[in-house]
Amino acid sequence: MGEAPLVAGVELGGTKCICILARGPDDIEDRVQLPTTRPEETLSAIEAVLDRWSGFSALGIASFGPVSIDHASPLYGHITSTPKPGWAGQDVAARLKRHAGVPTGFHTDVVGAALAEARWGAAKGLADIAYATVGTGIGVGLIAGGKPVDGLTHSELGHLRPVRVLGDDWVGNCPYHGACLEGLAAGPAIAARTGIPGDQLAADDPAWDLIAHALGQLLHSLVLTGVPRRIVMGGGVMVGTDHLFPRVRAAMAKSLAGYVALPEVGDPETYVVPPALGGNAGPLGAIVLGAQALGVQLQTSFTTN
Amino acid sequence: MGEAPLVAGVELGGTKCICILARGPDDIEDRVQLPTTRPEETLSAIEAVLDRWSGFSALGIASFGPVSIDHASPLYGHITSTPKPGWAGQDVAARLKRHAGVPTGFHTDVVGAALAEARWGAAKGLADIAYATVGTGIGVGLIAGGKPVDGLTHSELGHLRPVRVLGDDWVGNCPYHGACLEGLAAGPAIAARTGIPGDQLAADDPAWDLIAHALGQLLHSLVLTGVPRRIVMGGGVMVGTDHLFPRVRAAMAKSLAGYVALPEVGDPETYVVPPALGGNAGPLGAIVLGAQALGVQLQTSFTTN
Repeated sequence: MGEAPLVAGVELGGTKCICILARGPDDIEDRVQLPTTRPEETLSAIEAVLDRWSGFSALGIASFGPVSIDHASPLYGHITSTPKPGWAGQDVAARLKRHAGVPTGFHTDVVGAALAEARWGAAKGLADIAYATVGTGIGVGLIAGGKPVDGLTHSELGHLRPVRVLGDDWVGNCPYHGACLEGLAAGPAIAARTGIPGDQLAADDPAWDLIAHALGQLLHSLVLTGVPRRIVMGGGVMVGTDHLFPRVRAAMAKSLAGYVALPEVGDPETYVVPPALGGNAGPLGAIVLGAQALGVQLQTSFTTN
Repeated sequence: MGEAPLVAGVELGGTKCICILARGPDDIEDRVQLPTTRPEETLSAIEAVLDRWSGFSALGIASFGPVSIDHASPLYGHITSTPKPGWAGQDVAARLKRHAGVPTGFHTDVVGAALAEARWGAAKGLADIAYATVGTGIGVGLIAGGKPVDGLTHSELGHLRPVRVLGDDWVGNCPYHGACLEGLAAGPAIAARTGIPGDQLAADDPAWDLIAHALGQLLHSLVLTGVPRRIVMGGGVMVGTDHLFPRVRAAMAKSLAGYVALPEVGDPETYVVPPALGGNAGPLGAIVLGAQALGVQLQTSFTTN
């Protein structure tokens, strides 16, 4: 890792910001946590942290979304729409890039975590992976050839509409789609359906089968993109619920029905795995984004493509 | 186009092969059509065509599938499994590359058509597109930054399982998944459900609403990948059924429910379009694949990413 550049990374989350100065997980020079409040206050506080640091050659920002990652758009680097007061339309990337004066990478927090898990975490050494977080929402980061899969915008695959379990006609709680994946299987959906928060719901509650089915459909869909050599599933619902992994893997295998006959997919225990980086995935993802803005692919052992 | 390399392109289809020697659609030096029979006979006939040609600097192959496009696999460039006699396990790319002695690109016929429509067709000038073919099967080619989105394998998004229309419990006819997209909306599924081939099914037949709903779910899913700036829909079911485009666009818009608030997606008539290259999309896609194997991005007006 002696070759890795020193990067300033910012994970801009909905409730807190984590700024790190690092080359990687084993070489973190500083780590500062700030509350996310109003934009002016928060961005000024981040700038003050950057002012204290020296020697970094790039900046990476992994932000809550939705954001614009479309380089062809004047809104590139902005948070586009959010219920968070003051943040809709906020230009994050250009402002912090101007302040830092170094090449700057910008993407969603979910893609950041995906990049970090691919580089240093549960999918280490793999260039093609998916990372799905199942928590207060469902987000997916898809990485191909070591880079985020995007174009017009970033993935919103947490809002796929899965086929339903026969007889389950609960309307779901996504304000846009009702019974999309997020409206069926995210934490608030579990609580809305059962009246009990997921972390208190008994392992034998029949609702888990419905949740596992929905998440199995997410995995089915991710496999069919052709991209992932491994799928990392994180977020509060997955990480806090050990019995869910075997169920979700089984739901995936049943749904695919042997259609993708590749050994990677055929071994669900190694194909669908929990994350390895915990709370550092987001800020470390910002480090990867910064390095990629320099044209440096931190991945040294990646499968070529 | 004076800068474009001369490329030998092969579209290897299930019933016929088209070989072209070309720089692009306006500069086709030769075009030869061969029947696809047994592998040895067909590949030898392709080699004989290549022997007659000179001056090409790359070879591109767009093949029926499934194929291995995983450079990390010893099966790269093989047709992996197919009911077509003799073709399962056939090494296509290495054999033809060895014979031609030039850099060789290889991918599915669907991805080939996607690349060609992005370069010269209905999505000309766009680096990030999706191409979906709805015919005897459903195939999807996703292109991001001018390159195919892939990794472990190629897209199989035609086998997504869409949410069903309330009250529709037809089991579908996909041998793996029953009521996946292909099992609900490909040509054979339409005929199996209604007893009438799609091209003879009356425009006011209620089955079309169910088919449009399923294809609307395909579009919903493709939009949520974040990739496409435009979606091209081709294949016999789409191209032969003019009334289907408005229905499919409406089904997409209804399903997304305003969630992806970008102007491109908000104008379904320009966002979801028929193909422009007809029967030449496949062989021209092979030309793009060959050029990409040379490291040449034929796309000159692509949106940068």
